[in-house]
Amino acid sequence: MSDPHRDAREFDLIERIRRRVHSRDDVVLGIGDDAALLQVPAGRWLVVAADTLNAGVHFPEDTAPADVGWKSLAVNLSDLAAMGAEPAWCTLSLSLPGGDAHWVDGFLDGFLELAHAHRVALVGGDTTRGPLSISVTVHGFVAPNRALRREAACVGDDVWVSGTLGDAAGALAQWRAGSLRDAFLRARLDRPTPRLALGAALADVANACIDVSDGLLADLAHVARASGVGARVELDRLPASDALRAAFDDATRHAWQATGGDDYELCFTAASQMREEIERIARETGTPVARIGRIEAGEGVRAVDALGAPWESAQVGYQHFA
Amino acid sequence: MSDPHRDAREFDLIERIRRRVHSRDDVVLGIGDDAALLQVPAGRWLVVAADTLNAGVHFPEDTAPADVGWKSLAVNLSDLAAMGAEPAWCTLSLSLPGGDAHWVDGFLDGFLELAHAHRVALVGGDTTRGPLSISVTVHGFVAPNRALRREAACVGDDVWVSGTLGDAAGALAQWRAGSLRDAFLRARLDRPTPRLALGAALADVANACIDVSDGLLADLAHVARASGVGARVELDRLPASDALRAAFDDATRHAWQATGGDDYELCFTAASQMREEIERIARETGTPVARIGRIEAGEGVRAVDALGAPWESAQVGYQHFA
Repeated sequence: MSDPHRDAREFDLIERIRRRVHSRDDVVLGIGDDAALLQVPAGRWLVVAADTLNAGVHFPEDTAPADVGWKSLAVNLSDLAAMGAEPAWCTLSLSLPGGDAHWVDGFLDGFLELAHAHRVALVGGDTTRGPLSISVTVHGFVAPNRALRREAACVGDDVWVSGTLGDAAGALAQWRAGSLRDAFLRARLDRPTPRLALGAALADVANACIDVSDGLLADLAHVARASGVGARVELDRLPASDALRAAFDDATRHAWQATGGDDYELCFTAASQMREEIERIARETGTPVARIGRIEAGEGVRAVDALGAPWESAQVGYQHFA
Repeated sequence: MSDPHRDAREFDLIERIRRRVHSRDDVVLGIGDDAALLQVPAGRWLVVAADTLNAGVHFPEDTAPADVGWKSLAVNLSDLAAMGAEPAWCTLSLSLPGGDAHWVDGFLDGFLELAHAHRVALVGGDTTRGPLSISVTVHGFVAPNRALRREAACVGDDVWVSGTLGDAAGALAQWRAGSLRDAFLRARLDRPTPRLALGAALADVANACIDVSDGLLADLAHVARASGVGARVELDRLPASDALRAAFDDATRHAWQATGGDDYELCFTAASQMREEIERIARETGTPVARIGRIEAGEGVRAVDALGAPWESAQVGYQHFA
């Protein structure tokens, strides 16, 4: 069902992409054949994650192409970070309404900026005609039995989170309201930071780990369920950026920190004896971390306010983007 | 930008998928964490391909869900076949307009039927809301330096193709015209056969190989360009199904065999001393093959008719689906 004209454009686009890609020594064959040929280091496990971003669902339609490129790789690298894995390669499936070379150039600016920063080689994929959609699959390595898994939280563990929470949700609220738009918050929405160095360093220290993409409480609930435990989170301990504090009242801010998505921070659990080690790792990797709660016996995730009272998410009503 | 209701549906869908998936011994961790953990056999190269199908572009909107599922995996496995690789794992990124569990069940019927037939484990991916689109990444193995690459065609090589050509294009023409629709041709469009056994067996015998997705002449031109050679193809030697012969006049049939897409047959080149060995492999793998031309010095692909006269594709005008 191919259209020869589309195909000509597709090959142009692929060539356009191929010219800008960096390779790695472990890439035997990258873009340009039916498949890529890759060498996994002996004695390492392969770690694979795949995530798709659709226009109007996962990012506002007015997002700059470079930011779409960055984010489409970042959300995938964040999954590798949450496993404690070292990234290596990715494939990119790009659906475009038209063969817009200018848009693709901008997209690649962001995508490859992040790829090169983490030595990730783009080794294959395809470009197709269709509604704007970006599917990325990332590949990395981890030492056997060293991956951070969701199911490994233990009763008594501290619960930690990296960076700050709620910034992306705040940016989205401003975008939707058409109110004053804070550039820092918008950058947190458009250019999340995959916490790769932190994740890799935590592999020997943390028990369970997940990246916060659907909202802290929802993602921590995945950890709790997989581990057969419960969790208690103190709202006042959730890290907030100055920009978020300045832009919203406390109740609104708390809602976004607890349930807003798109943070792409790491939420992890570790024994309390590990506190000093974790603080050291945070300093060495330049990644702020905050201790926000504890793993408990039972099930479910409880968020409590400063007085220990249960927090009701219904205190604030807001709509997500999609 | 997550919607909690969407997420609930997404997790339902993922759980629905997870329950039906078969695993393999080399899958340490499959669906359900941030990423999959996989073990590549020592001394093998990893082979990775990614292809996307969009509704209305890569398949008619009225295609049965099970056929969409089959085809979305088949076109990817076809890429592995063209490398001579043995498939192992795949990820699936599924964008759906609604969280339609019934559609997903049908999709999985076809997807998993083909996956199980080739012992391919679905190990991860995501489901998102958006226009119907399926992105699959497949992973396989090949012995070092044994992969079939496009760039390895040699002057004097025979050019071969598996199966029959033009069936999918014929089905599409019937579908578009609303004329009598032949079930065999439509099945060739909807359920292409990835030639995995043939590809693997050819690894020691063939030189270059590609799968025919964009049309024989276009794909053979990729081989010729990558190898720095030309090719000559005899139209009358292109294999045709009885159904295609019955449904169309010779000129139309030739056009589809030469330039119609979606065949997912293997086009490969091999030294002429290999003819008997190739016929033996064809018998043993139950895959018909036909010798259709020759690699020549020079550049470009020439198609000639029975009298050796150049074939003009403009003899027949027709439109592809997209």
